[in-house]
Order: sequence, then C-alpha cells, then structure tokens
Amino acid sequence: MKSRVGIVGHRGYSGAELIRILQHHSRVEMVLLEHREDAGGGGAVRRVQGPPRLPYDPEVVRREGLAVVFLATPPEVSMELAAGLLGAGARVIDLSGAFRLRTPENYTAWYHAPHTQPELLAEAAYGLPEFCRPRIPGARLVANPGCYPTAANLAIRPLVDAGVVDRAAGIVCDAKSGVSGAGRKPSLKTSFCEVTENFSAYSVLHHRHVPEVLQVSGLEEREFSFTAQLLPIDRGILETIYFRATGVASAADLVDLYERRYSGEPFVRLYNPGHLPDLRGVARTNFCDIGVTLDARTGRGVVVSAIDNLVKGAAGQAVQNMNLLLGYPETEALL
Amino acid sequence: MKSRVGIVGHRGYSGAELIRILQHHSRVEMVLLEHREDAGGGGAVRRVQGPPRLPYDPEVVRREGLAVVFLATPPEVSMELAAGLLGAGARVIDLSGAFRLRTPENYTAWYHAPHTQPELLAEAAYGLPEFCRPRIPGARLVANPGCYPTAANLAIRPLVDAGVVDRAAGIVCDAKSGVSGAGRKPSLKTSFCEVTENFSAYSVLHHRHVPEVLQVSGLEEREFSFTAQLLPIDRGILETIYFRATGVASAADLVDLYERRYSGEPFVRLYNPGHLPDLRGVARTNFCDIGVTLDARTGRGVVVSAIDNLVKGAAGQAVQNMNLLLGYPETEALL
Amino acid sequence: MKSRVGIVGHRGYSGAELIRILQHHSRVEMVLLEHREDAGGGGAVRRVQGPPRLPYDPEVVRREGLAVVFLATPPEVSMELAAGLLGAGARVIDLSGAFRLRTPENYTAWYHAPHTQPELLAEAAYGLPEFCRPRIPGARLVANPGCYPTAANLAIRPLVDAGVVDRAAGIVCDAKSGVSGAGRKPSLKTSFCEVTENFSAYSVLHHRHVPEVLQVSGLEEREFSFTAQLLPIDRGILETIYFRATGVASAADLVDLYERRYSGEPFVRLYNPGHLPDLRGVARTNFCDIGVTLDARTGRGVVVSAIDNLVKGAAGQAVQNMNLLLGYPETEALL
Amino acid sequence: MKSRVGIVGHRGYSGAELIRILQHHSRVEMVLLEHREDAGGGGAVRRVQGPPRLPYDPEVVRREGLAVVFLATPPEVSMELAAGLLGAGARVIDLSGAFRLRTPENYTAWYHAPHTQPELLAEAAYGLPEFCRPRIPGARLVANPGCYPTAANLAIRPLVDAGVVDRAAGIVCDAKSGVSGAGRKPSLKTSFCEVTENFSAYSVLHHRHVPEVLQVSGLEEREFSFTAQLLPIDRGILETIYFRATGVASAADLVDLYERRYSGEPFVRLYNPGHLPDLRGVARTNFCDIGVTLDARTGRGVVVSAIDNLVKGAAGQAVQNMNLLLGYPETEALL
Repeated sequence: MKSRVGIVGHRGYSGAELIRILQHHSRVEMVLLEHREDAGGGGAVRRVQGPPRLPYDPEVVRREGLAVVFLATPPEVSMELAAGLLGAGARVIDLSGAFRLRTPENYTAWYHAPHTQPELLAEAAYGLPEFCRPRIPGARLVANPGCYPTAANLAIRPLVDAGVVDRAAGIVCDAKSGVSGAGRKPSLKTSFCEVTENFSAYSVLHHRHVPEVLQVSGLEEREFSFTAQLLPIDRGILETIYFRATGVASAADLVDLYERRYSGEPFVRLYNPGHLPDLRGVARTNFCDIGVTLDARTGRGVVVSAIDNLVKGAAGQAVQNMNLLLGYPETEALL
Repeated sequence: MKSRVGIVGHRGYSGAELIRILQHHSRVEMVLLEHREDAGGGGAVRRVQGPPRLPYDPEVVRREGLAVVFLATPPEVSMELAAGLLGAGARVIDLSGAFRLRTPENYTAWYHAPHTQPELLAEAAYGLPEFCRPRIPGARLVANPGCYPTAANLAIRPLVDAGVVDRAAGIVCDAKSGVSGAGRKPSLKTSFCEVTENFSAYSVLHHRHVPEVLQVSGLEEREFSFTAQLLPIDRGILETIYFRATGVASAADLVDLYERRYSGEPFVRLYNPGHLPDLRGVARTNFCDIGVTLDARTGRGVVVSAIDNLVKGAAGQAVQNMNLLLGYPETEALL
Repeated sequence: MKSRVGIVGHRGYSGAELIRILQHHSRVEMVLLEHREDAGGGGAVRRVQGPPRLPYDPEVVRREGLAVVFLATPPEVSMELAAGLLGAGARVIDLSGAFRLRTPENYTAWYHAPHTQPELLAEAAYGLPEFCRPRIPGARLVANPGCYPTAANLAIRPLVDAGVVDRAAGIVCDAKSGVSGAGRKPSLKTSFCEVTENFSAYSVLHHRHVPEVLQVSGLEEREFSFTAQLLPIDRGILETIYFRATGVASAADLVDLYERRYSGEPFVRLYNPGHLPDLRGVARTNFCDIGVTLDARTGRGVVVSAIDNLVKGAAGQAVQNMNLLLGYPETEALL
Repeated sequence: MKSRVGIVGHRGYSGAELIRILQHHSRVEMVLLEHREDAGGGGAVRRVQGPPRLPYDPEVVRREGLAVVFLATPPEVSMELAAGLLGAGARVIDLSGAFRLRTPENYTAWYHAPHTQPELLAEAAYGLPEFCRPRIPGARLVANPGCYPTAANLAIRPLVDAGVVDRAAGIVCDAKSGVSGAGRKPSLKTSFCEVTENFSAYSVLHHRHVPEVLQVSGLEEREFSFTAQLLPIDRGILETIYFRATGVASAADLVDLYERRYSGEPFVRLYNPGHLPDLRGVARTNFCDIGVTLDARTGRGVVVSAIDNLVKGAAGQAVQNMNLLLGYPETEALL
C-alpha cells in the first residue's frame, strides 16, 4: 500500500522539483496542500492534471492520513506550520532553514529574526544522511540541509575528521550557485537581463548557510571563509575549496580517504585524480560529485564539490530523507 | 556651445542606453530629471559620478534651458508630462507608444486605455528618419518608433512601395526579441530561471506594435500576421518576414531594390544574396541589417531584419532624432 | 526476460540521450557498440560504469542476440551499417536522415549525395507513430523522423487532413532549434561565443528536413515555406506555423479538431485556447505540445508546436518505436 | 598626422576587439596584416569594408611605415614574427604570453616549450601601466599582460606592498572567466552545449598565468593558490581573492589603501565598502573594478576584482600601451 504525502509550497522551484521526483516514486501518493499563495496556476494544458489539491489545514492532513508533509516554504512559514502538522499526526520534512541550527540564539544571530518554536528546534533531526543517518528514521521533524552546506560538508568533513587540514591556515570555500537557489519570487537581482552575461558575489563571509557548515564540519567561524556567488545558469552549485593539507602525499591519497568515508554511500561520487566534476554531471541528479587536486610539494589542496541545488541541495535530499522516515529503499525515485 | 538635454526615466534599460550613447556625443550635456521612481541608485563606485540629477519639474527645465527632453517612460507617464515640457520650451522625444498612432481611437483600440492628449497626438512627428525625415527637424514632439515596427517597416515598406508583394497572400512577420524589450521592472515572465533555456510566444496577432507597422507600411491588418516571441538573450530583435514575390526574378533583384531605397541611409546595411544578418552583427549599434532569400521558381520570399532593440529600436534612434532636431550630423555619437 | 539492444554513436547528443532514457527502461539491457570515433571517453568517475562496450561488428550483434540496434550516426554511416545489422538478425532504428524519404532521387536532391541502399530505403518504415503506427511493429528497419518534421507534421497534418487550410495562401513554418540539434562535433557556428546572446537563421527554404514534412503532410513544396534558426539554448524546438483557415469559427474549434485527432495519443498535449506552449514545458520529455491562436474575422491562424529535439525529436521517439517493435507498452521509460 | 598601425591575427576575439577599439581612435589608421589563417572572411555586408588588408611581410611593414604592430597571435607565432617586425622598424605589442616572463627557463617551465627568442625576452617591457609605466614609452617590444594576471595583480600587489597580508597563510585567487578567453578556435570544451548551464574548473594551481602574478606581486608560488574556471558567458573575468589581513582595522581602511595607490589611475575603479563589482559593470570597458570585504574581528579579507578579459585583459590594455608608446593621451579611445 502506498503512503500518502503532502507538499506545502508547490509553486516554488523546490516544490516543483518535489513533484517531479515523487511522480516517479512507486510507493507514495502526493497531495498538494494550498497555503496562501499556493493557489491558482494550472489549466493551460488539456487533459493534464497535476496531483490533487486540498486547502492547507491540519484537519485535512489528519483526515487524509498523510504520513509525511514537506514544507517547501520560507522559514517563518515553516515555523508557523510545523507544530500543527505534527499535531495532526504527520511527520514533517522542512526544506527551509527554520530547524537546522541547534539553538534559537544561533538562529537569531544568522537569520536576524526570533525563533518561535525553540522546542521543535531542539527536537529536529538534521537530514544529511551521509553524516546523520541514524537519527533520521525515528524523527518526527527533519530539517533538510541547505544547498550550500550540503556541498560543503560532504567535501570538508572527511578532511577535518581525518585531520589532514591545517586548521590554522583556514579553509576557503568559494561557492557558485544557479539562480533557482534564490527562489521563484521576482526581483531585480534575479531578472534575466541583470544575470545573463554577468557574475557577482552576493554574500561574502556572512551567508546564513555558514553556521550549518560549522555545525556539521566542526570548523570554527574564524577558520572558514565563505563567499556565495550567482552563476548565470538555472541550477547547480559548485564549490571550490582551498586548504593546506598535512600528512597527505598525493591527490590519490585524498581520493582514497573520501572513498573509504563514502564507501556504500549511493549519492556521493568521487573523481579520479586529474579529473574534476562540473555542473552538467550532476544536473537533475541527487549526486554530490567530488574531485581533488593537491600540490604535494607545498601542501596546497583544492577540492571541487558539485550538486544540483534543487535535488541533492533540496528536493532530492528531502525525498532521500522521506525514504528513510518511511523505511523505503533510500534511493527509490532518486537513481 | 553644447546643447543641454534632459532624460526622464534613466533607470530603465532605454534610459541607461541613452546615457551610454550621449556620453560620447560631443555637442550635448545631459541632465537626469528624477520623476517618482527615478530617484536613488548610484553610490557603489568611488569617484565616479553620472550626469547631474535634478528633480523633475517644468520650471527646472525652463531654468536650465534644456533644448530637448527624452521621455523613457511608460505611455501614461509620457502623456502626463509632455505638455508641461513643451510649455517649458523644451522639445520632446518620447520613447513610449503614447504619440505614435494617428488617432486617439486607434490608440485606445490597441493600448486599451483612453488617450488624454489628443491634440499632441495630432501634432507629433513619427520619428523613423528613413521614411519620415522631412517632418522631424521642425517638430516640437517626436514619437520615437517602437522596436518591432522599426525592424519591420524598414524591411517591409520598400517591398510594398515597389509593388513586389502579393498582398492577397499576406505577409507573415515572425519576431523574436531579447528580454530587455520587456523593461526593467521585475516580473516572473522575465525572471532568469523562466527565460533561460526557454523560448516562447507572448503575443500573437494582437501586439500593440502592429498598428505602427500598418500605419507606416500601408498594409491592412488582414494582410499582416505578427507574432512576438521572447529570446533568452539580453538585447536584439530579429524578424523573419515571409511573403509571395511578384515581378522579381532573383534575390539579387530584391537586394538591389533595397539598395536603391536606402542609398545614402547611414543606418541600414544590406547583406549580399546568400548571407543573412544575425543579432551579434547589430548588438550595441544603430544599424538595421537586412538580408533576403528568394525561391525564384515559386516566388516564396524571406527577408531577415535585425536591430538592437535598445539602440535602433529605442535610444539610438532617439539620439538620431535629437540630431535632426538640433541640426547636428545625423550620425553623431552613433557610429 | 529483458531484450538486449545496441547503440552505435553513443558519444553524440542523441546517443547520450538514448542511454539516459534506456537506463530507466525495465525491459531492456543496453550494449554500446563502438564504431570508429565511438571509442574512448569515460574514466573520470570512480566506481561508476556506463553500459558495457563492445566493438562494432555484425558478428558481435548476432552472438549477443541484440534484438534492436539504434544508429545514432550520420546518414552516410547509417547507410553503410544498416544492411550488416539486419543480416545479423537485429532490427534497426536509424536516427539519421538515411531512410526517411521514399526514393533515392529525393534523397539525392535534398542531401546532395547518392543513396547507396535503395532497397532498404524502399523497405524502411517511417517512425512517426501518431501517423504511421500500423507499419512499425512489423518493420525490420525504422527511419526515426527528423526533429523539425516531427514538430511540424504533428501540427500541420491534422489541419491539412481536415481541409481547414487555404493551401493557395501557403503555410509558413518558422522553426527555432537549440544547438544540440547541430550535433556534438565542434564547429565555429556552434561555439559558445558565437551563439550566446545571438540568434540567426541558418537554413531558409532549403533545409533537408523539408521533404519529410511534404511527404507526411501532403503539402507541395510551393505551399510550404520553412526557415531553420538557431536559439542560444541547449535543447528544444519551437515552430510557429502560420496559415489561412477556412471553415473554422474559433481557436476552440481548432483545438477540438486536434483533440479528436490525438485522442488516445500519449505524447501529444493540447493547450487550451489562450495558452501557448513553450520549450520549458517539453524539456526532457517525449511530449509534443500544441497551441492555437485564430483571428476568426480574417482567418489568420497561428499554431505553436514544441518538442525536445533530443527526445520526441530523436532518442525518445526512437525508444517509442523500439517499444512498438518489441511489443512493449508504448510509453515505457518515456513518462 | 595619424600614425599607422598593423594588426596580425585580426580574426581572433582579441584581434576583433582591437579593430573595434581602434575604429574610435582619432590618431591612428589601422592595417590588417594577413598571416596564414588570417585571410578570408568578410563580404557578407554590402558597401561595408573593414580596415585595408595587406599580406603579412616585414617589407610591407617598412614600406607602409607602420609605427606599431599588434600581435594577436599564439605565443609560438609571436616568437616567430617579433624580430622581423622590429627589424622593419615597427614597435611591437604582443598580446600572447611569449614575452611576459623574465627568463627562458621560466617560460619553458610554464609553457612546456622552448623559448626561441631569449634576447627579445630580456628586452621586452611588461605592459601593466599601473605598475610598469615608466619603462613602456621607450620600449621596442611590449609584452601585454595576461587577462587573469591583470585582474589579480591590480588587486593583490597593493596589499603585498603595504604589508597587510599574512603571507604565511597564503592568498587564494578563485578566478572565473568567460569563454572568449579560450580563443576562437572551435573545440568541444568551448562548444555551446558543453558550456551553457555548466560551470567547471579547467586549471587548478598550474595555470600558465600563475608566474605572471608571482613576478608582479612578489608572492612566492607556495603562497598563491590559483584556480581558473569557465563561466557560461562570452566575456569577463572576476577573481575572488582571499587572504588574512594584518594591521588593518576595517574594509574602509583597505579601500583607502587602494585609493592612495591608484589615485590618478584612469582605469582602476574602487567600490565603497559594502559594495562589490560584477562583470556587467566592466563589460566592454577598460576598467578594473575592485571591491573589498573584511571581517575585522578575525582578519579574514576578501577582494573582488573584475575586468573585461578582451579589453583591460587584452585589446584595451594593448591600446593603452600603444598610447604610451606613441605619446598619446593614455585614455584615448578607451573611455
């Protein structure tokens, strides 16, 4: 028997991607829950209907027996809705930043707003399966990781754990993202004529995704320099990560280190030394591709990490988490 | 001595292009006239200042002795401001559609709004120099042509005038425009993620630029099918125009016909038979490039006409008109 | 039990798309057959292997028991290989133009080269299922349609069959294609810097896909004007088709006409009057989306037809044909 | 009286940009010198002629009295031609990497080829006017800087000179370039379909432009990590540069430091703290735009440097050098 799941916020890019992925999932049925701006749209194509739509209401969620509800909503909306959904018996996978950080104080420091649900914050499981898998199946509330931190932590944490990074020298993460990462709401900054044939940094050192990287990787803020930049493409995140390696003789050693760490992980792919990933290779997939260069003489190391920001960076990882919550094969609908 | 000119609406794409062009004009000094949403901006770059800014006010226009004011504003704003500017002694070049059609009724039929300045409509000179040059130097108010009609009329009218078009079969004009033609105001339709890797028709048969083509070319509405489509590029309009030729033996004959018509015109370039223009060739220029193909056996003819929508389709042609108004060489700042 | 199928030409864009689609087909196993330039590549990613590779050789095809071989090769290579593959017991789906036209003379007239396999040309079934389905399941050799003709014929033939086109006035098909339609071989014309922020016509009236449209739609050459143009996008074909309608009262009537014709067709979607398809809607799908506008007063009609050139225009339609050949559900791996 | 100048390699992107710039130069006349692959092209547009063309030949150079010859050629061609041109009495501005490094050994180490003109290497003046202006006017041979090093050195050297960089921690330069930087020769890597909607690193740590940065900035190789990456745009280089600041209290202090260094420099523009440059701001200009962010608490500094790779990174800087050679105002044709 199929599980029934709901989506709030289906008109945004992450919500649309959730629909696309779940349409190929053999064990779930989707319902769209229309909350405020979710209504409308559709009707252009004859005989073609998307998933059924219901008004957003915890009573509806209970009556329909939704096992999981995805919140593809801004953090303030996620904080507003999560408790009601849990109360209605659904488990929640939140794609916003509302429940990713461990303390309300940290949330306020980076999101410049109060956190209205501190108990839920304490309860939420961080949904990066490669590092947090054990806690996810039993969670009521999963905080789906940010797009930038997913690519960064999968690349950085194995290095930190293995002690091959000279932390005094710090790590630089130069990140580039496609425009869909900024959401679907029209703004001058994401207008076609402002973005095409352009490239710009939009957040240097103080991006709100930084604390997620610190929390998972174990780095301190002073050890980590992060810049977010806007690529003139639709989707994809590529991060170029610079560090000083200690105790490593070659790029092949680093690739082996990653291989051991990710052995058995279905969604991390490693490039052979001399090769580096690009965004085409991960577009519309749930993979995180990682490649390494090392100048063994001076210890300068460079890691390139690439994901699709809407898939492994959002909807795909959310479905991966759903599979874990519901006891389905983790790769279902994702390969 | 330099003339002083003003720009209203300098924050839009056409206004910015006016500034870019006039910066290289040896005989004019610019002033930006801030009207409502024009304020703000600037300040990012040290020691770099744009043209001086003054509040929009006819008294200021009179006091500063502005010879010409460009209105790079929507038609309803142009209708609101034109009379005051003329009253202050300036001549006006309006880049909107407010004063292009001959009657208020026609304006209302295509713009779905009343025309509030019918006397000015009657007075305005249509600023397509290649066909309307004699009336421009003496005009108080110039209606700068629309972008689509500029490319269309320069290609079509010589054919109609020469009687080589089978009008019963009609003319098809399949037009494609870069996104800057839609203006700078953010909207979902011009958001990067909606436009990139996409192509779509946005106005079929009923685009408000159609009556300008009819008015200049002499075609009847039933003879002219026009579709406006959105290219995933910043700037440029290319129109592919189909017709049945009568009394023409070869593409070379058609090119000769255009050559004779445009002999001496500095901004129309003709392609040799076997060659067709593209948008790169006209980007950031005031040229209209025209090329022709003819299947002599069946009379099927195809003309390709290309302009930069912000230059020959807007700001460049406006400066061309300003040069005519002020008695300057027509090509000043435009070659 | 799964069928085994082979692909020649897997390094081109159509070949790569075949691999992508067939990876999700539950009833076939792929083998790549390396012919000349097909060798090499791969090796960048650890632990990731594509389909097995074998040298191209009819003996290998026979030994491996390949039921179907796809030729994603230029027409001259397809002519060279087809007979050997058929002799080895495989059925052949050719994605090139080698076997699409009915006579060697017509092939020579449009491809400017002799046809070396006239008997196979006579035998081949044209693989446009919506119009030619009955002949396909029993065919040994399927000529997969060209990308432009697929979009054109699905839009035009229902109109011609229904007699609602004024054929004396002719039909104009203004076609725009993404760059992948030009193949993967590097050339200046498909270099990034030549294509981005550009748009150009590359074949007017004489494109080699024209005779496929004539053959399927029943139009005469003099009735059909076709221009192929290059969009600065990766994939997608959109055709804007102009005609004079006779005996039709509204756009809704035309949509109904298409609806009746395509009732039960899984891969043709119709837009409601007032809506038109775009390329995003068909990207990476096997759909052909069709929308209609009609000026009832003057009879000017415009149809917009959109496909993904690599899917419904190439690899997807080839898999649709394979499903017909092998008796599988026609939509398997394609929805 | 105008000076006469020649261009070898006018068909490449830098050569075409030279023509575009020099067309607006009031004091020079251009001649194209056709060397091998330079011939052909042209002829598409009627009545439009580019600069006159002559066969490449030192005798022609002497006879025509060319004061300066630009070599927009690969380094091996520049090495082949430079001596002959100097012998014919012309001064040479070479846009390739042939004469930029100080020793043949260094050239061989980075370009993996012998240097055939070591005496000319010793004689050449490095043409970065902001740091090397005094030597340029008297030089016979100017080595026009590489595109990446121009953006890097203008950003880095003032910091190094002022001693505000913690050199032990090293400097990271994450560089992104438009595709025109790869030249006009077709290749799979610069094909539209491989580049659009993609982003990739193509040279990590070992790019041949690295030694130019070391030579000008005074950094040692182990202190400088450089990655070159390909943006899906036509033109522009943006470099994000990370360092540890010492002895600096704020971003404003760093901006002041740059201001003092570049006071009077016409082509370096500084952004106020809180603002960063983008590529649109420098497109088709000879400016290098520089902006700064500093986390004063931890000393982490980020500098963003942006140029147009074909202008300040190639042809524009070459004309700047020509103006210095010929005693013209340095900004002529460049503002």
